[in-house]
Amino acid sequence: MAIEFWFEFASTYSYPAAMRIESVARGRGVDVVWRAFLLGPIFRAQGWNDSPFNLYPVKGRYMWRDLDRLCETQGLPLQHPTQFPRNGLLAARIAASAADEAWLPAFVRGVYDANFARDLDIAQSEVVAGCLERAGAPTAAVLETAASEAAKSALREQTERAQTLGLFGAPSFVVGDELFWGNDRLEAALDWHAAHVPRPGR
Amino acid sequence: MAIEFWFEFASTYSYPAAMRIESVARGRGVDVVWRAFLLGPIFRAQGWNDSPFNLYPVKGRYMWRDLDRLCETQGLPLQHPTQFPRNGLLAARIAASAADEAWLPAFVRGVYDANFARDLDIAQSEVVAGCLERAGAPTAAVLETAASEAAKSALREQTERAQTLGLFGAPSFVVGDELFWGNDRLEAALDWHAAHVPRPGR
Repeated sequence: MAIEFWFEFASTYSYPAAMRIESVARGRGVDVVWRAFLLGPIFRAQGWNDSPFNLYPVKGRYMWRDLDRLCETQGLPLQHPTQFPRNGLLAARIAASAADEAWLPAFVRGVYDANFARDLDIAQSEVVAGCLERAGAPTAAVLETAASEAAKSALREQTERAQTLGLFGAPSFVVGDELFWGNDRLEAALDWHAAHVPRPGR
Repeated sequence: MAIEFWFEFASTYSYPAAMRIESVARGRGVDVVWRAFLLGPIFRAQGWNDSPFNLYPVKGRYMWRDLDRLCETQGLPLQHPTQFPRNGLLAARIAASAADEAWLPAFVRGVYDANFARDLDIAQSEVVAGCLERAGAPTAAVLETAASEAAKSALREQTERAQTLGLFGAPSFVVGDELFWGNDRLEAALDWHAAHVPRPGR
């Protein structure tokens, strides 16, 4: 059984999580399943029409400072995006339709890098196209697929599944029936995996 | 320079933090300053009239499960309190007036143990008196002081200072000008201390 990584492209703490999850999980011999979803509908269900980091400025100020320190510790570049949160709908539709593609992890990391390290608008299809190119994806075909009803449905269904699983923020990790919320719970999720998931041949 | 530990007696994640901070900090050669405050006024300033874990039940359900796992990992007993949040006003007045007392850390741990391991109502003065007894405090004198205007002012001022420092939740840790929020940031706060606080004689 793998670890499911639930992320939203606008989510600040999903950035360090996306950048480190593959190497951390691989070090433990655990596969990662990448699950894009949208926080917007989930926040709206809680009565919020914006990021809680904007709605509660005291918490928002703390978050940016905390993220500064976290990225510095992790050796990650960080530019506070001039627009927050950014609209990651197109990127999320692509990711939700490409779960089995080998280029997906590199694409996801590229979108986070664009948003949080290069301050690019990930709502723009040219920016997303650049991320696809660099990840080695068949860019034109992927963008065409992303505009289809099937891709829209795939993301909608994945977001509904996130709600069913009890997700309320990102990043989140799911191991079996257990939910872990926050970049700082990645290690706990992997510890849970090691303690509770039987390995073949043991 | 020490690490300031800001806690609220009703706060769930303050429980594991209170139980481990002294041994973890001592292992790094750092003194702990214990700072009780009230979250109520801070939550009200954000428009909340109850714990966000009650106002947002999806988040609340997750928190209790997360706390189960955390306490199990830390070897701490946990009973979900039958009343949440409990009123820690009396205990907080005592703690805010007793910052320099040798019995304070044991008293604070005792109150958390009463609330979260023994499901006792920490709003009751008999319960608080029992915690004072076990911590070796002069119980009658401490309870008398706690009813004074000076004790009420001390807690009010400490809560106002928490707001000035940008605190919005508990537990929080302050090292110099840096704020760290959450039990899972204790190690980061101590890392910051090690990297940035000059030690005498070095």
